[in-house]
Amino acid sequence: MPESVEYGNKSLFLSKEFHLKTDGSKYPDASGILKDGFTRLLDVITANNVIEFNSKVDESLLLQGINVVVLSESDELQYDIDESYKLLIHANGNQNYAEIEAATVYGALHALQTFSQLCHFNFKSRKLVVSQIPWTINDKPRFSYRGLLIDTSRHYQPLPMIKKVIDSMAYAKLNVLHWHIVDTQAFPLEIPSFPKLWDGAYSTSERYTMAVAADIVSYAKKRGINVLAELDVPGHAVSWGVGYPELWPSKNCTEPLDVSNEFTFKLINGVLSDFSKIFKYKFVHLGGDEVDTSCWSSTPRIKKWLEEQGFNESQAYEYFVLKAQKIAVSHGYEVINWEETFNSFGSKLDRKTVVHNWLGSGVAEKVVEAGLRCIVSNQDSWYLDHLDATWQQFYTNEPLTNITDPKLQKLVLGGEVCMWGEHIDGSDIEQTIWPRAAAAAERLWTRRDKLAKKPEEVMTRLMHFRCLLNQRGVAAAPLDGPGRVAPIEPGSCYVQ
Amino acid sequence: MPESVEYGNKSLFLSKEFHLKTDGSKYPDASGILKDGFTRLLDVITANNVIEFNSKVDESLLLQGINVVVLSESDELQYDIDESYKLLIHANGNQNYAEIEAATVYGALHALQTFSQLCHFNFKSRKLVVSQIPWTINDKPRFSYRGLLIDTSRHYQPLPMIKKVIDSMAYAKLNVLHWHIVDTQAFPLEIPSFPKLWDGAYSTSERYTMAVAADIVSYAKKRGINVLAELDVPGHAVSWGVGYPELWPSKNCTEPLDVSNEFTFKLINGVLSDFSKIFKYKFVHLGGDEVDTSCWSSTPRIKKWLEEQGFNESQAYEYFVLKAQKIAVSHGYEVINWEETFNSFGSKLDRKTVVHNWLGSGVAEKVVEAGLRCIVSNQDSWYLDHLDATWQQFYTNEPLTNITDPKLQKLVLGGEVCMWGEHIDGSDIEQTIWPRAAAAAERLWTRRDKLAKKPEEVMTRLMHFRCLLNQRGVAAAPLDGPGRVAPIEPGSCYVQ
Repeated sequence: MPESVEYGNKSLFLSKEFHLKTDGSKYPDASGILKDGFTRLLDVITANNVIEFNSKVDESLLLQGINVVVLSESDELQYDIDESYKLLIHANGNQNYAEIEAATVYGALHALQTFSQLCHFNFKSRKLVVSQIPWTINDKPRFSYRGLLIDTSRHYQPLPMIKKVIDSMAYAKLNVLHWHIVDTQAFPLEIPSFPKLWDGAYSTSERYTMAVAADIVSYAKKRGINVLAELDVPGHAVSWGVGYPELWPSKNCTEPLDVSNEFTFKLINGVLSDFSKIFKYKFVHLGGDEVDTSCWSSTPRIKKWLEEQGFNESQAYEYFVLKAQKIAVSHGYEVINWEETFNSFGSKLDRKTVVHNWLGSGVAEKVVEAGLRCIVSNQDSWYLDHLDATWQQFYTNEPLTNITDPKLQKLVLGGEVCMWGEHIDGSDIEQTIWPRAAAAAERLWTRRDKLAKKPEEVMTRLMHFRCLLNQRGVAAAPLDGPGRVAPIEPGSCYVQ
Repeated sequence: MPESVEYGNKSLFLSKEFHLKTDGSKYPDASGILKDGFTRLLDVITANNVIEFNSKVDESLLLQGINVVVLSESDELQYDIDESYKLLIHANGNQNYAEIEAATVYGALHALQTFSQLCHFNFKSRKLVVSQIPWTINDKPRFSYRGLLIDTSRHYQPLPMIKKVIDSMAYAKLNVLHWHIVDTQAFPLEIPSFPKLWDGAYSTSERYTMAVAADIVSYAKKRGINVLAELDVPGHAVSWGVGYPELWPSKNCTEPLDVSNEFTFKLINGVLSDFSKIFKYKFVHLGGDEVDTSCWSSTPRIKKWLEEQGFNESQAYEYFVLKAQKIAVSHGYEVINWEETFNSFGSKLDRKTVVHNWLGSGVAEKVVEAGLRCIVSNQDSWYLDHLDATWQQFYTNEPLTNITDPKLQKLVLGGEVCMWGEHIDGSDIEQTIWPRAAAAAERLWTRRDKLAKKPEEVMTRLMHFRCLLNQRGVAAAPLDGPGRVAPIEPGSCYVQ
């Protein structure tokens, strides 16, 4: 739901030559982001029906196109850019054009997305129509970080599937793809500086070259979506040792990564260096969750090192995380870490650390009180792999719960829904993400006072959005019941 | 599995300018079927990775393109056209071209499909490669009717979803889309001669215009897929009465269609007339299954009519089906009917009737012995909505079971897997169809003596095909377990 919406009761038909204009725009569109966004708009609104242009329509009833004015010349996509837009669809008499004005091209993309959801096929006239004109929409997101996590370690996701997910994110105005690339089970990404790392992939074909990773970043950028790369250390990293067994404490004790070995950090440096050539988001995610340090104490060589350093296991964990943080910072990144790092040694973290809350509610308030920034993904509400988490829970999960001081509120960058991959491959990723992610997407975009107090108030709108996703070829599941449920009986999309 | 396959141990890289040639071909390709098929080939083999063309490769190691010779000038798509092809990929020295020869352009499309499955991305060279050259493949389907039923009455399927299903059918060389368009719950198709019929749709937007239906036929034709339209009468037709209540026996007894009313048959004639403008397959399906005739006896007006005609309920059912058949024949169609019509009054059916077996096994043999043609879809093995039917059952279901006389074997046109829609909408159609439909697709394509005796022998190949589908953006489910199951644990695609 946009920040402010006014509409009327007239209609306009989209003309046969519906086109993009950029009179008065400062943005040169050298990389074609706007042009491609407009082409996607046309594709999406014409995909479901066959438009007929036989009958002559008076020019005053036609919408000729959209004039898009972008104020910034830059196409830099980064955290906290201006994503606001104005969208006007007014009938002025002759040559009617919708008007978009945005600070950046990415605000303009959001405007085109909103426009696409105002068009529908009219079965009487067989034409595309925008009803309820005149529209006056002013809009901007509440939070600058509105994310979706995908996990390509537990199951490989082929490139076309990742692109489909990115496309669908844009429909709900999500703007960060948190790519949890590697984990215990598999290491699918090419790392040029340490080329044996991807020997830890499930198979030779279930891998991503650096060129493919760059392609994903580029594809996402064209849709206004940042890619946050995660390199989870020191836990969740067993797969690294397939190519470099020296990273394991021992053959029988394969995690966490060997804290006593300088090679471990040399390798992390190589990975982050390779990342920095492709992943241009200002943040990198270094994980740090669920670290079982027992292999460090039980492996003689590491036990000895701990004693020499005067570390207990916990201090060694802290040492590891902080050292990895420094490496990331040296490559120009600001670091995000899962919340255990904050819970264990919050005051020691790099002061620019963003804490990624996942264990439960009530954490963001502690993080911001400690002066650190926070991203919210509490698993009781925003873990998509928890099929019993309902869309209502997704909708009502409020990142600023118990945070009332505006200065502290600013430290909550936003939130993210997480599509962990233990039971997710190409066959079921879309219907597990949607429609529940859309409920969270509104929580993250829409101004707080415009959100529904009771989720039932938005049910019809969410149901319509789910049907719109299906119409766009996105396999969004019915609202009824748990995540990824099949329709329980025959019926209209609009009641399921 | 093709009819005959020979291969070697060499490899060729696909050149940067990999292209289509048609030297020696008789086929003009006015409608671009071949050209589009080649474009789709390129799209599909390049979608998963980023190909690198930096390094110079000796011309003798390059495959420059494919030369496609089509012997027939016609692009007519019909039942029983020649779908055979020869595919040669030999390394001759310089200017290497793969060679395709086919009787029709549709055989050539099958050859391109086979070729697409011989290409893979080589992670060392970062190029597309065809390995195990030289390939000499001679292929043709065992049965001419290899179908998939979709049901757009129990749930509306948006046009993009139907197109995705058609795309995926082509990957498994299925060639008939049996479109079960309308049924009890909803009537989503525009019928110009009786425009109130689609008032029976779930909602105004969950409908298909005639133009969309024509678009589906055209989209399918370009992929060598016929569209078999079904108009199920006299049962499964409650939705027809929303627009025309006179079709119902009464307001409280809404099926079957009123056999006593001439209007019923006038309407059926209108529908079939409109069908004949769009659906050009030589067959039309008139249903005739699961007819509960009690409303005919219990409605006074119809009861009276039955008595006047000297019909019991069963004879009235026969009368209805035969009358509808005659109407279809008058529009140039040959008729397919579900097997109850054969079981009830087989000797009375039009002699060109094709009986569609679904109730169980052992029926095809009876049908062909009665001199009628048959399509096999026995529900114990080939109903995709039966989630407990395993891929092994799909693979081993043999249409010619107990039919040994070659003359009678010819009467079995082929078979079809059925994706009934009670629990199927846009969110779960792909993963319920695949991979199990692929197991049946091989049963219908591959020469009987080349089929595996034990399904375990093809498990690896089916698993690879399932992963190929995922790589092409088709949400095919894991093989393990019942239909549409989620992956049970993290792992490689190739073992699930």
